[in-house]
Amino acid sequence: MSGAVGVDEYARLDVDRRTRTGVPEVVFGTGKPPEQTLRLLAELRAHDRTGPALATRCPEAVLDAAAEAFPGEVVSVDRTAATVTVGEPPPPTGQALVLTAGTTDLPVARECLVTLTALGVGAEVVADVGVAGLHRLLAKLDDVRAADCLVVVAGMDGALPSVVAGLVAAPVVGVPTSVGYGVAAGGVAAAATMLSSCSPGLAVVNIDNGFGAAVHVAKILKVACRG
Amino acid sequence: MSGAVGVDEYARLDVDRRTRTGVPEVVFGTGKPPEQTLRLLAELRAHDRTGPALATRCPEAVLDAAAEAFPGEVVSVDRTAATVTVGEPPPPTGQALVLTAGTTDLPVARECLVTLTALGVGAEVVADVGVAGLHRLLAKLDDVRAADCLVVVAGMDGALPSVVAGLVAAPVVGVPTSVGYGVAAGGVAAAATMLSSCSPGLAVVNIDNGFGAAVHVAKILKVACRG
Amino acid sequence: MSGAVGVDEYARLDVDRRTRTGVPEVVFGTGKPPEQTLRLLAELRAHDRTGPALATRCPEAVLDAAAEAFPGEVVSVDRTAATVTVGEPPPPTGQALVLTAGTTDLPVARECLVTLTALGVGAEVVADVGVAGLHRLLAKLDDVRAADCLVVVAGMDGALPSVVAGLVAAPVVGVPTSVGYGVAAGGVAAAATMLSSCSPGLAVVNIDNGFGAAVHVAKILKVACRG
Amino acid sequence: MSGAVGVDEYARLDVDRRTRTGVPEVVFGTGKPPEQTLRLLAELRAHDRTGPALATRCPEAVLDAAAEAFPGEVVSVDRTAATVTVGEPPPPTGQALVLTAGTTDLPVARECLVTLTALGVGAEVVADVGVAGLHRLLAKLDDVRAADCLVVVAGMDGALPSVVAGLVAAPVVGVPTSVGYGVAAGGVAAAATMLSSCSPGLAVVNIDNGFGAAVHVAKILKVACRG
Amino acid sequence: MSGAVGVDEYARLDVDRRTRTGVPEVVFGTGKPPEQTLRLLAELRAHDRTGPALATRCPEAVLDAAAEAFPGEVVSVDRTAATVTVGEPPPPTGQALVLTAGTTDLPVARECLVTLTALGVGAEVVADVGVAGLHRLLAKLDDVRAADCLVVVAGMDGALPSVVAGLVAAPVVGVPTSVGYGVAAGGVAAAATMLSSCSPGLAVVNIDNGFGAAVHVAKILKVACRG
Amino acid sequence: MSGAVGVDEYARLDVDRRTRTGVPEVVFGTGKPPEQTLRLLAELRAHDRTGPALATRCPEAVLDAAAEAFPGEVVSVDRTAATVTVGEPPPPTGQALVLTAGTTDLPVARECLVTLTALGVGAEVVADVGVAGLHRLLAKLDDVRAADCLVVVAGMDGALPSVVAGLVAAPVVGVPTSVGYGVAAGGVAAAATMLSSCSPGLAVVNIDNGFGAAVHVAKILKVACRG
Amino acid sequence: MSGAVGVDEYARLDVDRRTRTGVPEVVFGTGKPPEQTLRLLAELRAHDRTGPALATRCPEAVLDAAAEAFPGEVVSVDRTAATVTVGEPPPPTGQALVLTAGTTDLPVARECLVTLTALGVGAEVVADVGVAGLHRLLAKLDDVRAADCLVVVAGMDGALPSVVAGLVAAPVVGVPTSVGYGVAAGGVAAAATMLSSCSPGLAVVNIDNGFGAAVHVAKILKVACRG
Amino acid sequence: MSGAVGVDEYARLDVDRRTRTGVPEVVFGTGKPPEQTLRLLAELRAHDRTGPALATRCPEAVLDAAAEAFPGEVVSVDRTAATVTVGEPPPPTGQALVLTAGTTDLPVARECLVTLTALGVGAEVVADVGVAGLHRLLAKLDDVRAADCLVVVAGMDGALPSVVAGLVAAPVVGVPTSVGYGVAAGGVAAAATMLSSCSPGLAVVNIDNGFGAAVHVAKILKVACRG
Repeated sequence: MSGAVGVDEYARLDVDRRTRTGVPEVVFGTGKPPEQTLRLLAELRAHDRTGPALATRCPEAVLDAAAEAFPGEVVSVDRTAATVTVGEPPPPTGQALVLTAGTTDLPVARECLVTLTALGVGAEVVADVGVAGLHRLLAKLDDVRAADCLVVVAGMDGALPSVVAGLVAAPVVGVPTSVGYGVAAGGVAAAATMLSSCSPGLAVVNIDNGFGAAVHVAKILKVACRG
Repeated sequence: MSGAVGVDEYARLDVDRRTRTGVPEVVFGTGKPPEQTLRLLAELRAHDRTGPALATRCPEAVLDAAAEAFPGEVVSVDRTAATVTVGEPPPPTGQALVLTAGTTDLPVARECLVTLTALGVGAEVVADVGVAGLHRLLAKLDDVRAADCLVVVAGMDGALPSVVAGLVAAPVVGVPTSVGYGVAAGGVAAAATMLSSCSPGLAVVNIDNGFGAAVHVAKILKVACRG
Repeated sequence: MSGAVGVDEYARLDVDRRTRTGVPEVVFGTGKPPEQTLRLLAELRAHDRTGPALATRCPEAVLDAAAEAFPGEVVSVDRTAATVTVGEPPPPTGQALVLTAGTTDLPVARECLVTLTALGVGAEVVADVGVAGLHRLLAKLDDVRAADCLVVVAGMDGALPSVVAGLVAAPVVGVPTSVGYGVAAGGVAAAATMLSSCSPGLAVVNIDNGFGAAVHVAKILKVACRG
Repeated sequence: MSGAVGVDEYARLDVDRRTRTGVPEVVFGTGKPPEQTLRLLAELRAHDRTGPALATRCPEAVLDAAAEAFPGEVVSVDRTAATVTVGEPPPPTGQALVLTAGTTDLPVARECLVTLTALGVGAEVVADVGVAGLHRLLAKLDDVRAADCLVVVAGMDGALPSVVAGLVAAPVVGVPTSVGYGVAAGGVAAAATMLSSCSPGLAVVNIDNGFGAAVHVAKILKVACRG
Repeated sequence: MSGAVGVDEYARLDVDRRTRTGVPEVVFGTGKPPEQTLRLLAELRAHDRTGPALATRCPEAVLDAAAEAFPGEVVSVDRTAATVTVGEPPPPTGQALVLTAGTTDLPVARECLVTLTALGVGAEVVADVGVAGLHRLLAKLDDVRAADCLVVVAGMDGALPSVVAGLVAAPVVGVPTSVGYGVAAGGVAAAATMLSSCSPGLAVVNIDNGFGAAVHVAKILKVACRG
Repeated sequence: MSGAVGVDEYARLDVDRRTRTGVPEVVFGTGKPPEQTLRLLAELRAHDRTGPALATRCPEAVLDAAAEAFPGEVVSVDRTAATVTVGEPPPPTGQALVLTAGTTDLPVARECLVTLTALGVGAEVVADVGVAGLHRLLAKLDDVRAADCLVVVAGMDGALPSVVAGLVAAPVVGVPTSVGYGVAAGGVAAAATMLSSCSPGLAVVNIDNGFGAAVHVAKILKVACRG
Repeated sequence: MSGAVGVDEYARLDVDRRTRTGVPEVVFGTGKPPEQTLRLLAELRAHDRTGPALATRCPEAVLDAAAEAFPGEVVSVDRTAATVTVGEPPPPTGQALVLTAGTTDLPVARECLVTLTALGVGAEVVADVGVAGLHRLLAKLDDVRAADCLVVVAGMDGALPSVVAGLVAAPVVGVPTSVGYGVAAGGVAAAATMLSSCSPGLAVVNIDNGFGAAVHVAKILKVACRG
Repeated sequence: MSGAVGVDEYARLDVDRRTRTGVPEVVFGTGKPPEQTLRLLAELRAHDRTGPALATRCPEAVLDAAAEAFPGEVVSVDRTAATVTVGEPPPPTGQALVLTAGTTDLPVARECLVTLTALGVGAEVVADVGVAGLHRLLAKLDDVRAADCLVVVAGMDGALPSVVAGLVAAPVVGVPTSVGYGVAAGGVAAAATMLSSCSPGLAVVNIDNGFGAAVHVAKILKVACRG
């Protein structure tokens, strides 16, 4: 076998997804050749200009090539988040807060932040407020209580979302991260902790899935805006 | 050791939880002696009459004794859900839909329904619309798309929440159930499936945790009402 | 095969253990016929009267028979802890605090308390101060900080020990419990969380092992007394 | 130890396998030195010319060297599938359809396609019809229902085979893939989902085993042809 | 809540499933109240008389009540398989062989046999031909090679399906069983072995899922008959 | 289905196994109806009188009925081991020692002892010499070093076999037991420890498989006798 | 996104931790860019000069750059432990002994030793005294019994801590390591063994967590010094 | 830290192990710096010349340097096995057969062969006789039945040892390998299958542990020779 594989052979773009689910299709960069990611991003951008096109989990090669690949577009590359955004984000509505337990949870938090921004949600990250030093969280309690929605990103013991969910009335989404070693390796322990939370109402997404948490929050805030 | 163990010795009721988190403390009946559950229910009812007091996962003995234990109160016992509600629910706001993949997922769906009702959320169950016969779901598509929020309860393959989340703009919460056998036993496979969903924005709660899904939805709809 | 199985055929009592390790052998009741447990308890009591003889995880039949089985002895039965103590405990030294996250963690906490008492450590239980309502813990902060050693017992998310270990200078031992369901069933999630704690210095014992935590604390306080 | 290791020292070619089981032995390239793979391929080709010789999971070095290694033969290299076929495939009988949930499942789907072709089964791939956008599958429903046999390749939530098996009368084989991260990493979640399917009659092969699915389908279609 | 729960409240019978997938809906008895199972069986029988109605995994109470519950019908109860069949099976087509590794795998094999019979497939069980005494299988080799399709049921080491699949040209379906203890408990080891088979083309269904294997085989033989 | 199921329908006795493998077929009682176990035992006894017939893992009903079921035979019932032996054991050859770490490992050790005896191996049990009190093992060191073969039975931490294998020249077989709770529940931790032993040459059998360890030892001692 | 990320954006230094918990914050080098680790180390050193600043799990780049990064400071780099210490350690109090089962456990043991030293605890490592050659441990028994506290580091079977804890009155902390392969890979088997120890009072930290064990010991010895 | 780390600092050679256990200490090369492995090998050789010194799991650097590192010695390097033997092996006694299921199991089989040879056991490898083509094994049945002891090495489904153990009277040791992918990845499935074998008397060592199997066999054959 040889020759170029066209888009139709390997992908069936779901260009109608924004209409159907409120959130457009997004390119997931892991495991795709860089040129495939860039080409899919271009296709998405061409079909739907009501908001920016987004690619997550981009390898270095995509991050490096993105700016030149879309001449005449506003291209935003976040190297911590490993994301590429093509097009300007819509004006922000609502206020989401993304908390992280530790410093190394930052890439996941930023993937969440970038996605929220691309989806038109007002958002901010507050990093490194884990339970080993509870005063750091308590010092931010007013901000925490003021948010419409919270995303709490934590690896290792995954304890922070339970603590936060016990302090606020807003919906809280926990994002376990693969940060940790030993029994915490890969994030399964953090995920289990969050699913087992003694604080009712905490909902959880997959390990390292800052993107998914952002989409859930964006859907929540659309209910709010409709209400 | 001997003698009666008073409430203060084994529990520290969080009577302020409704103010702080929007949702009151609830009694979890598993592993507690029936009289402890009833006594804690009475304490909760005594401290906070802005809404009903609720006990979930009640053993038979609690379900049997509940009606007589609270004379002069509106007591509602759901034997499928294994819940006891003491006091009238608030008038319903919003509209949540609770879908189940199979017939045996019903107890979890009803725990969710009872909790939503007790928290003042309008809710309904549509049972047995799993992916083995997709037409059953598609026949309900208008109702599904009209809901403000969806809870999708599924055991075995846990595939239904992914399908639903790909069809609607409202936030979707997946509840894996322990229904199944072999590699599906205990619900871990269904939980993993939901967390791994290819439909973005699906958030997940613990296996069989209809209660937790209801609380998450109630918090979402409060954001909506505030908005 | 038939006939009575004598002690020598199934057990080799380690009557020298108190001298060697500071802690006497204790009878573990699970999986032993009740009369075997009682007989081993009698043997231990006969060989070593420098402190009480203790049996943990006793089935109902042992708890029921214990008082009559040791005429002329001070026998203490704790039905929540499922323990039998034969003989008076030594006068208490030091001060250990046993915290529990929830009400249903109480049996494990009491096993710990009974063991500490039997080993001559001053101890107290403070129940139901889990992270879903952080104010309950903060209200006890003076007591928590005054303790020489802390044992923190928690099931479900297992988050409490991390929070406590971030607040105090004393050594903290975490005891995961099998309280919980779904991904928390059996306590493995809580154990993993505690081992992965972001609060340095937290040490962990097996799930539901209130006894082991007590022994570790007793050994710590002996170092202190020797110091 | 030194010197060349001959074929007899490390392999015992099962040249009679086509007669016995209807399917010839195939070289599995992972973990074998490239020259060993090429040599075994040559041996297979020399012993049995009733159909092409096939090597799967070939490292780059084998894919690069294959064309020159078999002068005078029709050599087909599929870089997506990582396969080498030496010899012309038999004319196709029957019609199998290989569906994939996502774009990154393509290598597994193509391994299946190449194997089906080498075994004389008519086959085609339809990629990227996962459940996050159900309309993509429904748009292909006529093709799906016309196939004699279906192979459904899916990673992450592994939900697609359940949906397909609920729509068709033909036998369906699910192939979980290792595509995914977090709780989906490695494909175990997708495999569990497929084995737990609520759609009866779905059979499953190992993670990423496009080859095995093809062999099962080829055996099915031989029953059909015999019938 | 109280009163009878009607069929519409808990189930949505998929009466069209036979037309769509070639196999009618079947009642799964586990976790359903006996009267629910019997009622669903009656509904299925009423809607579709082109073949018998079947219930699997029936508790004792259903097996005991079945004969009287369907007066005027041919009712067949298999206590080893825990199945109830209402109505006469269609005349058999094709020939499937169900092998078991051990004696205790028999209930799963018989569930498979009953289902095959109800679906109109000619079938027979050959029990206790596991690999610990290979001569028992080799003695049946002519029968094994004559079958159109084989189902191989095995717990513990799960090795038999690999051996059988290496001996025949017909499609083989492996059914792991939960027979075994220690690392084999629950059947996960047997399932993993079968999925990892070195014999290509072996397809696998869930642990103890004799029913699912039968449906896969019935679909295979329909392809054959169509061919 | 109804009527009695004859031996031929559910079992294929491997009466030639003693000749082929040196060890006769044995009835495994778990999951079999008591009368089936007794009938199979009678068949084995009838076909092969060169040694006793053995049934392991017998439920109470089998143990109770065994003596009367075989009039005129020497029947030996071991209630700790849950075994029935019909016929006199051969005279013992060689000397195997079965050590246990704790008292509750005794049933597994006795299953091993009974099997060794039935197979004609001289054997003895030394119980309760676990590593928590190393002096108990060291006190028996002469016996330990004199044995031709050792079986070491341990649950919980499973540490004893590693220690023993580091002290002796004879082959050592480790038997993990399901004794333990928390992370030790079911014996998987003990099995993993033994397989990972830092003492070279330790071989392991399944959890609780005292029978399998005995067969391995009997085969070893036959090599010795042949030598 | 671009430009330098300041400390405030990714970290919230817990400079008050030494006062609160007796142990200062420490930089965990894994997953952090080298310059971030060095900068955080400088911040810690600047805020708190009552003891040295410590970074653990440092990549090569940090170890190489450390000496020059802190001119005028006493900088100590341990390449086996992968640690950097900036500042002189306090005078040692108490005596801790760090034992290892094997040679390859040394990096974890040295991380523990460096941390103990930085925290002002007298400490020493005794390597390679695993249970495969028990005499090596017994030869050191006087030293082992003289220690105030013991840390026992072991991979593979993880058996050494159980043996040690059965020999001494001092508190023992087990550190499982990821040394091993097969079922021991990653250290989970060793961790499970230690948690399941039959020697009461053994407490455990995460796999490879020499640092955490050191902190627990330092806290223990502070209780001792206060006593 | 700086300076050379001497042997005494990281290792405690167990030079007495041959006397005590019949098998000398062996250097395990994984995770050790190459020069450490060579130095330990030299130490072992210097202390004990009654047989060769052996290092297993040697990285390339050790294999490359070995010949020159021991001038005047017979040095044998096996690149497939990754072993270095220094000194001539003793004359062989007994006859062990090492079977492999597939070609890629060869490295483990050769590690076993090299170790058997170094320990003075006569041994031979027969590769690639897995159950997918049973005739390959049956063709070797006379050799298989003539061996004093068998080691059976298998990855993937791990089925071969069960089949072999059902055919011979000699003791059989199963060695699971990490060969395989998907649910077979890492070898845990093969290990579980072997431990669950329906063929009694099969004993198992850790995944890929050809060395351990060889030691067990050497100990068995010494019993034989003593007998």
